[in-house]
Amino acid sequence: MRTEIATLGEFGLIRHLTEGIQLQNESSLYGVGDDAAVLSCPAGRELLVTTDLLLEGVHFDLTYVPLKHLGYKAAVVNFSDIYAMNGTPRQITVSLGLSKRFSVEDMEALYAGIRLACDSYGVDIVGGDTTSSLTGLTISITCIGDVEKGQAVYRNGARETDLVCVSGDLGAAYMGLQLLEREKTALEGSGNDIQPDFAGKEYLLERQLKPEARRDIIRRLAEAGVRPTAMMDISDGLSSELLHICKQSKTGCRIYEEHIPIDYQTAVMAEELNMNVTTCALNGGEDYELLFTVPIGDHEKVAEMKDVRLIGHITKPELGCALITRDGQEFELKAQGWNPLADDSTPAAQ
Amino acid sequence: MRTEIATLGEFGLIRHLTEGIQLQNESSLYGVGDDAAVLSCPAGRELLVTTDLLLEGVHFDLTYVPLKHLGYKAAVVNFSDIYAMNGTPRQITVSLGLSKRFSVEDMEALYAGIRLACDSYGVDIVGGDTTSSLTGLTISITCIGDVEKGQAVYRNGARETDLVCVSGDLGAAYMGLQLLEREKTALEGSGNDIQPDFAGKEYLLERQLKPEARRDIIRRLAEAGVRPTAMMDISDGLSSELLHICKQSKTGCRIYEEHIPIDYQTAVMAEELNMNVTTCALNGGEDYELLFTVPIGDHEKVAEMKDVRLIGHITKPELGCALITRDGQEFELKAQGWNPLADDSTPAAQ
Repeated sequence: MRTEIATLGEFGLIRHLTEGIQLQNESSLYGVGDDAAVLSCPAGRELLVTTDLLLEGVHFDLTYVPLKHLGYKAAVVNFSDIYAMNGTPRQITVSLGLSKRFSVEDMEALYAGIRLACDSYGVDIVGGDTTSSLTGLTISITCIGDVEKGQAVYRNGARETDLVCVSGDLGAAYMGLQLLEREKTALEGSGNDIQPDFAGKEYLLERQLKPEARRDIIRRLAEAGVRPTAMMDISDGLSSELLHICKQSKTGCRIYEEHIPIDYQTAVMAEELNMNVTTCALNGGEDYELLFTVPIGDHEKVAEMKDVRLIGHITKPELGCALITRDGQEFELKAQGWNPLADDSTPAAQ
Repeated sequence: MRTEIATLGEFGLIRHLTEGIQLQNESSLYGVGDDAAVLSCPAGRELLVTTDLLLEGVHFDLTYVPLKHLGYKAAVVNFSDIYAMNGTPRQITVSLGLSKRFSVEDMEALYAGIRLACDSYGVDIVGGDTTSSLTGLTISITCIGDVEKGQAVYRNGARETDLVCVSGDLGAAYMGLQLLEREKTALEGSGNDIQPDFAGKEYLLERQLKPEARRDIIRRLAEAGVRPTAMMDISDGLSSELLHICKQSKTGCRIYEEHIPIDYQTAVMAEELNMNVTTCALNGGEDYELLFTVPIGDHEKVAEMKDVRLIGHITKPELGCALITRDGQEFELKAQGWNPLADDSTPAAQ
C-alpha cells in the first residue's frame, strides 16, 4: 500500500503523523499546531538546546536502514547531547524534507520510530516543519532539555589529575556500519538472491541501527553523588572528543589502550576486516557513549560503577594528548573521527 | 577568492563563522561550543519554540537570491513566528547542509545575513550543526523566544464579532518572486548580456528578498493595551491563514476585498502579469505580516493604529469563511496558498 503525500498536503500530513500525541512533561504547555510551541520554565532549572541535521546519503543509507530505526536513532542522538550536559531531554521539534519517492506509509514508519524513542525517554514532540525536497530525505531535530540550575556539565571543566571515564564500549557502531556496507556491496553483485548472514554480529547491528542514549549513567552518577568535571557524548570518536575536552579545558591527557572497553563482537569483526580494533574504538564514531572526567577523589565510586571504565587521566597541557599502548609506547591522539566536511570521511584503518 | 570548506573542516568552519559572537540576552548563558546551549528561564515568562526548514530548489533559488539575503530571511521568518505568538525572539540555532559547490566565502555571506538579522532583532546564535550535503544547500533554523506567562496568543481564540486585522500590505512578496522568475527566464535566453530592469519595482524585490518581522506591531498593540484574541503570521497566504484561525477557533469569517491592503507596485505588477491582484494578496504567501483578531470593543484603538487594517470580522461557524467582493458578491475562501507538498505548488491566478 502506498499513499502519495500530495493526497494529504503539508498540513494534513503533519496532522496525520502527530495525532494522538499525549504531552508527558508538565513543562510542555502547547505542542504542535500553532506558530510556536509554548513551554513553561521549571523552577530552579536551566534549559538546554541542541540540534542535529541528518541528510540522506551523508548520514544514512536507506538501502539498509529501516525508516523506523532511522527515526528512533535521529531522536536518540539528540537526547544523548542533553544527557551529555547532565540534563534531561523534555521536548523535540521534528523538521522533515521529503522527495516524492516517499509515501505516507514511509513517513508513518519514520514517525513510529521517533515516537517510540520519545515514549522510551519521556520526551514530547511539540512542533516541526514538513516540506518537499528535490532530493532524498532531510531530518532536522532540535531537542530542549533542562538541568538543575548551575549543574550543567561542560567540556571545559577537566582539571589535572582528574580521571577519564567512558561508559559502555567503543567501536561497535562503526563495525556495524562496515558490516552493512559490506553486505550491501555483496548483495549488489549477487542480484539479491542471497540473504546476508549477520549471525554472531547482532550487537554490532544494534549499535549502528538502534543506539541508546546513556540516561542510566547520568542517573547512576547522580545517585553516587559524583558530578563530572567535564562531559560529552562520543559521536565522532573517542580521540576527537578527548581532544575537544582537553582543548577546551586547556589540559593534556593520557589514556591507556588496555583500558579502552571493546566488545568481543567488535574485536572479531575488526580481525575479519583486517583493521586495528583500537583504531576503530578511537576513531569509529556513533557510539553515543559518555566520555567524562571526575576528580581523583571519586576514584572508588566510578571504579565500581556498572558500565563505566576508567581509561586514563588528565595532565598538564604541555604533555599533550596521548595514547599509551599495551607495550608502553606513547602515541599522540589525533582527531581522525568521522568528519563529514573533510574530503575523505573514512576513519583511517590501522 | 574561494576557500574550500574542507580546508577548515566542520569544527573549524563553525568556529570561523561564530567567532566574535557576543551574547546579547541575559537568558543566553552558554552558546556555541558544547553538546547543547544553556539558557536561563526568565522569571514569570514562558518559552516559545519554532523551527523552519529551507531547502534549495524548493524554498529558494540561488540564481537570483544572494546568500546574505537568504541568511537574513531564514532568520527573520523564524522571528516572525515568535512575534505571532505575542512573544520576543531570544535565541536561534542554525544547522547547515552544504554541498562542495559552496566555499567558506559563501558561508561567510550566508552567516553575515543571519548575524545581521540577529543584531537587528536582538537575538543570539547559540548553536547549530554543520554538515556536508550531496545536493545543494539546506538551512534549518530553530528559534527560542519568550512571552509573559499566560500572554501567548494562539490561533484558536477568535470569537464571534471579533474584528479581523492585518498589518502592512499583502501580495508584494509573491509579485517580487514572479518578477525575479521572469527576469531569470529572460536572462537565460539572452546569454547574460543585458541587466534586468527593476526600476519602480524595488518594493516588490525587497519584500521577497529581505522581509522583516513585525516586531513594531506587537509593541504597538501592547502599548495600546490591545491583546489579540488570535494571531498568526502570514507565510502561506491570507486565505490559508484565515482558514487556520477559523478552523482552530471553530468560527467563520467575512472579509472585504476593498479593505485588503495592497501596495501600488503590487497592483501594477499584477496588471502587467495579467493576474487578479486580490487573488495574489489572498494566496501569494511569504508576506510575513501579522493576521490577528481583536474584540470589537478595541475597534477604535486598532482603527487608528499605524500600519494596521481592519479587513473583516469573525462570524458563527455555520456562515463559513467568505470574501465579499467590491460588487457585493460572496466567495468561499479556499486555501490555495503555497503548499510545498501538493503536486502543483503555484498559487492559482484568477
